[in-house]
Amino acid sequence: MKLSQRITNITGGGSDGWDVFYKARRMIAKGVDVTELTIGEHDIRTDPVILAAMDQSARGGHTGYAMVPGTQEMREAVAARLTERTGVPTSYENILITPGGQSALFAAHVATCSPGDRALYIDPYYATYPGTIRGVGAEPVPIRTHAANAFKPKAEEIAVEATKGAASLLVNTPNNPTGTVYGRDTLNGIAQVCKEHDLWLISDEVYDTQVWEGEHISPRSLPDMAERTLVVGSMSKSHAMTGSRIGWIAAPKEVITHLINLATHTTYGVPGFIQDAAVFALAQGEELEAEIAAPFERRRDIAKDILANQNTVGLVPAQGAMYIMLDVRATGLSGEAFANSLLDTHNIATMPGESFGHSAHGHIRVAMTVDDKRFKSALQTLVDHAEHLAA
Amino acid sequence: MKLSQRITNITGGGSDGWDVFYKARRMIAKGVDVTELTIGEHDIRTDPVILAAMDQSARGGHTGYAMVPGTQEMREAVAARLTERTGVPTSYENILITPGGQSALFAAHVATCSPGDRALYIDPYYATYPGTIRGVGAEPVPIRTHAANAFKPKAEEIAVEATKGAASLLVNTPNNPTGTVYGRDTLNGIAQVCKEHDLWLISDEVYDTQVWEGEHISPRSLPDMAERTLVVGSMSKSHAMTGSRIGWIAAPKEVITHLINLATHTTYGVPGFIQDAAVFALAQGEELEAEIAAPFERRRDIAKDILANQNTVGLVPAQGAMYIMLDVRATGLSGEAFANSLLDTHNIATMPGESFGHSAHGHIRVAMTVDDKRFKSALQTLVDHAEHLAA
Ligand SMILES: Cc1ncc(COP(=O)(O)O)c(C=O)c1O
Ligand SMILES: Cc1ncc(COP(=O)(O)O)c(C=O)c1O
Repeated sequence: MKLSQRITNITGGGSDGWDVFYKARRMIAKGVDVTELTIGEHDIRTDPVILAAMDQSARGGHTGYAMVPGTQEMREAVAARLTERTGVPTSYENILITPGGQSALFAAHVATCSPGDRALYIDPYYATYPGTIRGVGAEPVPIRTHAANAFKPKAEEIAVEATKGAASLLVNTPNNPTGTVYGRDTLNGIAQVCKEHDLWLISDEVYDTQVWEGEHISPRSLPDMAERTLVVGSMSKSHAMTGSRIGWIAAPKEVITHLINLATHTTYGVPGFIQDAAVFALAQGEELEAEIAAPFERRRDIAKDILANQNTVGLVPAQGAMYIMLDVRATGLSGEAFANSLLDTHNIATMPGESFGHSAHGHIRVAMTVDDKRFKSALQTLVDHAEHLAA
Repeated sequence: MKLSQRITNITGGGSDGWDVFYKARRMIAKGVDVTELTIGEHDIRTDPVILAAMDQSARGGHTGYAMVPGTQEMREAVAARLTERTGVPTSYENILITPGGQSALFAAHVATCSPGDRALYIDPYYATYPGTIRGVGAEPVPIRTHAANAFKPKAEEIAVEATKGAASLLVNTPNNPTGTVYGRDTLNGIAQVCKEHDLWLISDEVYDTQVWEGEHISPRSLPDMAERTLVVGSMSKSHAMTGSRIGWIAAPKEVITHLINLATHTTYGVPGFIQDAAVFALAQGEELEAEIAAPFERRRDIAKDILANQNTVGLVPAQGAMYIMLDVRATGLSGEAFANSLLDTHNIATMPGESFGHSAHGHIRVAMTVDDKRFKSALQTLVDHAEHLAA
């Protein structure tokens, strides 16, 4: 009677770089006023009009089992959104509604990876990626990127690992943790590798509404890519609905058919009243999304202004998502040591680049998820602290 | 670029016995007035007072990411319920909140079964069981039971398969599809086999509030069983909250620790406002649960009265859950043929015993999920039809 190797191995044993996060949490528990720039979650709540739509649906009787693939309305709303924004003709049969983007990431890997398969992903990465891959029994293979290239992956470096055999490649644009947005060249390179090496592409686009420079390009829209791409989407970031746990996978119909079988045996659908709330939220169109994205762009601009006046802290091109990535190598410290010293001396919590893999050492990720005033003051303190250390 | 064998193989290729279900659905879509006795779902909606609690929580701001293991309140409410009802001291650390019982069934098998492991379950079975086991890459091994023993498993028959090697055994009491409730002897036999052959026991107790005869005994409460039992629970059936997707696993702390890691990479928690609604619902105590269970007991009594006056249709001891299992072998038809002829001639849809595996051939399952009047008339028609066929 042992637990399965798959479940005991999910975390891979490493928690590098997360110590500072837990230290901050302990300080907060003790009553210290910590400025938390760690969390990928809005400083606002879900809009009351969305909650009213949810309540109306629930009281209207939508409280029984919903269709496992998602309600017809929700699947069609997502399909219409993708058709409109990416130009790829998408029908409800291309869509599975999932309880959040994380659930979609897991299901996409179950669909594409058999136990033992190598699954590629880009380093630095969103914290759950390697564990998600291990959770399906596959082997997580990071593709290193470089600060000099704004942590965007190079096709030839992906190809090195793809050549050794792999089932899938997971990419994320707009990117967490770096705040970059992949341009057409980067994405064409990725598409090329996928086609040459016959990889499934899993494209995590949960930040698709948060772009400040350039445009969001879905790799599913590139030539011949729709047939091999599984897009992961979510209402979490676009509509400040993190706690509602609703997202989707967009993929070829045949893939969705199998994913529905998986959903029948894993989640058994998403609450109907939450889907109705999401349909309502999507129907508000881009205006609501822009309103929810605006504070992050505003804070990005605040950060740019502060960083413009100095040379110690570098800014990775901040083009989208809720985060900025800062280069603190001029201080001579690792990202982890810098984050620790900033927390210890100024009660400001950030995430060391090392907590997102091996590529972003000497960097820290700053989540722009506190109000403007507090954000501005924290960032100024951060720069002052770096200059003090570098001096 | 192939889909994983695990996902394409989930359904196992078989859909035996489900034709009549889909035929009924097609008739309904065409406007035929079919009496559906197929669905494991109440004919009432979630109570408005529970929905009000949900709305209050959401508007009160509980719309962000909830703690992945579940809120402290919900974990403690479930722990208190289990402590009180089963006598097993249970703390919040023994509880993981999941998005429904199905999700708990999946996670419990991920935790206990490695790919290729044999996972035992009792036939006849709830429809998702073999697919859930295949979904984690394990091999589903049914344990046949017998009408003469009211489809309760015999320890020696489980032992035959356990001897060949197995990681887990899945049992369900009160039982879907048979409506039986396992007594102490049956459960002691099961516990004995688990201990002798070092099996994990996965105990599906989602019908624990629906018992008309005897009492619900959780096998986790038997000597030395808490350390090897994972209990699957749900608000779906007990509180008519099927669409809310909330359930739990109760297990040893160490197992829960690993299950939390799995949840971080699969579901990322359950909406906080749904957990708050569930805490409210549980706080109403057994009175609300009894109210929700009452119609099924009432309809069971209606069925007993009708069946008392004839000898053609046999009743498997109807002790709990939303279903009764009827023996129609006296008609000379299989369960499937009988269900088909009842649907064709009288627009009454039931589930053939064959759709739940191999043990319940010559039987049909009747879900008691339509109002009393309609149920009574449908059951009388069913009996008349059987007598007509047997004559
Ligand atoms: C890159 C990325 N993907 C997916 C997710 C998962 O989001 P959710 O499960 O809330 O939809 C997150 C959340 O932080 C994320 O940053
Ligand atoms: C025996 C049994 N277990 C588990 C479930 C799953 O219930 P839920 O996922 O709604 O909690 C059901 C639903 O019909 C069932 O009959």
